Amino acid sequence: MPDFQPYAELIVHVGLNLQPGQRLFIGPLTPPAAAPLAHAVAAAAYAAGARWVDAAWDDPQLARLRVQHAPDAALDEYPAWVGAAISEYVSRGDAFLTLAGEDPDLMRGLDPARVGRAQQARTRGRRALLEAATRNQMNWVVAAHPTAAWAAKALPDLPAEQGVAELWRLIGAACRLDRPDPVGAWRAHVADLTARAGYLTARRYTALHYEAPGTNLVLGLPPGHIWRGGQLAAANGVSFTPNLPTEEVFTLPDRARAEGTVRATLPLSYGGSLIQDFVMRFAEGRVVDVRAEHGEAVLSKVIETDQGSARLGEAALVAASSPVAAAGRLFYNTLFDENAACHLALGQSYRFTLHGGEALSPEAFQAAGGNLSAAHVDFMIGSPAMDVYGVCEDGVEEPLMKQGEWTFKAGA
Amino acid sequence: MPDFQPYAELIVHVGLNLQPGQRLFIGPLTPPAAAPLAHAVAAAAYAAGARWVDAAWDDPQLARLRVQHAPDAALDEYPAWVGAAISEYVSRGDAFLTLAGEDPDLMRGLDPARVGRAQQARTRGRRALLEAATRNQMNWVVAAHPTAAWAAKALPDLPAEQGVAELWRLIGAACRLDRPDPVGAWRAHVADLTARAGYLTARRYTALHYEAPGTNLVLGLPPGHIWRGGQLAAANGVSFTPNLPTEEVFTLPDRARAEGTVRATLPLSYGGSLIQDFVMRFAEGRVVDVRAEHGEAVLSKVIETDQGSARLGEAALVAASSPVAAAGRLFYNTLFDENAACHLALGQSYRFTLHGGEALSPEAFQAAGGNLSAAHVDFMIGSPAMDVYGVCEDGVEEPLMKQGEWTFKAGA
Repeated sequence: MPDFQPYAELIVHVGLNLQPGQRLFIGPLTPPAAAPLAHAVAAAAYAAGARWVDAAWDDPQLARLRVQHAPDAALDEYPAWVGAAISEYVSRGDAFLTLAGEDPDLMRGLDPARVGRAQQARTRGRRALLEAATRNQMNWVVAAHPTAAWAAKALPDLPAEQGVAELWRLIGAACRLDRPDPVGAWRAHVADLTARAGYLTARRYTALHYEAPGTNLVLGLPPGHIWRGGQLAAANGVSFTPNLPTEEVFTLPDRARAEGTVRATLPLSYGGSLIQDFVMRFAEGRVVDVRAEHGEAVLSKVIETDQGSARLGEAALVAASSPVAAAGRLFYNTLFDENAACHLALGQSYRFTLHGGEALSPEAFQAAGGNLSAAHVDFMIGSPAMDVYGVCEDGVEEPLMKQGEWTFKAGA
Repeated sequence: MPDFQPYAELIVHVGLNLQPGQRLFIGPLTPPAAAPLAHAVAAAAYAAGARWVDAAWDDPQLARLRVQHAPDAALDEYPAWVGAAISEYVSRGDAFLTLAGEDPDLMRGLDPARVGRAQQARTRGRRALLEAATRNQMNWVVAAHPTAAWAAKALPDLPAEQGVAELWRLIGAACRLDRPDPVGAWRAHVADLTARAGYLTARRYTALHYEAPGTNLVLGLPPGHIWRGGQLAAANGVSFTPNLPTEEVFTLPDRARAEGTVRATLPLSYGGSLIQDFVMRFAEGRVVDVRAEHGEAVLSKVIETDQGSARLGEAALVAASSPVAAAGRLFYNTLFDENAACHLALGQSYRFTLHGGEALSPEAFQAAGGNLSAAHVDFMIGSPAMDVYGVCEDGVEEPLMKQGEWTFKAGA
């Protein structure tokens, strides 16, 4: 078994920044296979003064069996206790951790319409977590756990055991765990992302313009949008870093202003299905056309989850040379692939990417450009062939990225 | 990996007797290590027409870490979502399955006072399940899953992998899975237990009298007590067999009438602690003295859980030659050890062991001799040296068991 201690320490101290006396809830999206890392995290959490570490596991095999065999009428159900568990911990401002290690082929061979319906039900059943996280009601982290199934997909050329070890090495490198002082390296990195986000916020662009082969998209940015990156501040007063690894700066797109076409540059591993080689066309902020070589039915169900799932909730910029991208391979896991390329997200947007967004009513947040949905699905559009421009109020387009790389420095 | 299919079929068809359209909830006492058997059960359940199979895993390592490291004030907490999950499924009459494979040494080396407090909190947090099961509100089953830690304790002379395989073989033999037609063998066995229970109920004994080395106990049986065994009828209309294996017939002791001393004949593996070589003295139904060579502090905490946990809720008779006893070894697992020997249970009694018991108010049930508690802890008192007598209304003592064996036949 790999040594989970360094990653566990990073999760507790840099990611969660867990406070003495805080409770930590692991789940409810974490598979039982992540138990060894979860135990290392729990030990590190108690050493940091945690009051209580609890977990609610999500069993992917039971999810597959359900899609495979449950009667049709049952597919739209989801147990209420999952939402109750989320609310219990959210209501106290307890810390949350999700350990992602999904098998990208979990749902392979199953009826995509049934896969999509079950996924919709799950998305709705867990809405309370997305709602709380996008408001930063608590310090929360998504980290990764290497599973055999994931390794088999990401490193198909290696035998099973070697694959898991190599995947773990890649995760470590992407998370700077191979540096002499990982926590120190992270503090510097987080400061750098924060400075870049601050620079972009101060520019007050009215839109982003993306250009790449197959992509020509203009994405409105509403007045008062804030770029975020690195560290966030939770409503419980804790500064935390929600993704490990993280290489992105991101902001709020205007839900009503997206025009043009965007081509995905990486496959999207979502709920055990792979969605590949897809293109979406937007008009007035809404997806009006979607084509995918693989997984189109599942992607369509994502888009149809609710009113907000056909609109964008996040725009994130990542250099094509990020340490995650430097691994030179597809991870088939959003936590990694989204930190190797510029990406957008369909669905729920983050309240904290709008000045005063946390305090607005849902209606006011939407009127200001925010998007509300039970879904939040990132997909990758960046590549070394992408240019990104910030559109100024006077219509001038300032280059932000050329050929996938930042055109400016923003020192911490 | 062993072939879990036959046991899974037995659990679904004989144990749960799962009905088409029923939901099945696995947990919340089931460890993640039981996942392979749980998946086989889920597949068998869907083949039988299940609507939905859900699981809430209970992670023993997190429980140990909590007892080890959580601040003292947190030990009496228990998450409310576990009770919410239980109530969600109970309220609809859905089927329940617990897969037991506890490490008997899970809590070894930890402060027994802290172990006991955490166990009390857990017992109270799960009271809804015990309450529902002792009323048979739904069809429910406790079955076993062989884990490495359990095998290491029960079969210390075997190397790890062989130990699990041998434990699995022993479970199979105890569950009659080595018979040509296990389901048929079970139907005959269940009919036999039912007939024996019927005979005992018809005798209307006023008390049981136990005699064995270190044991001399008279246990009152209240008017209207019913002996049960084999099959039970749930409030949802389903006939089911709640333990696999099961070799017992059992009834309701009068909570106010236990006099004398009883010596445990087998260690009790409870919540990851071993309680060994213990003696309890009862007066007016209550434990007034308890001594244990090992685990006395944990046992004392069990007894102190609430008002009812110092009184008896179940009296069960098992022949010393039962197929489980025939394995000739201690399992360190109550599901098995209690089916190798006569046993009693401290705490909650079964409503269905009293005529009309399900319909009584808590007060009326207690007045009729029933016992109410958040705890229900079986402990083994039987051996080939035990005699048991049924006390008739006129004071005559009829032998029921001599030297651990039944003195009468009750044909199906």
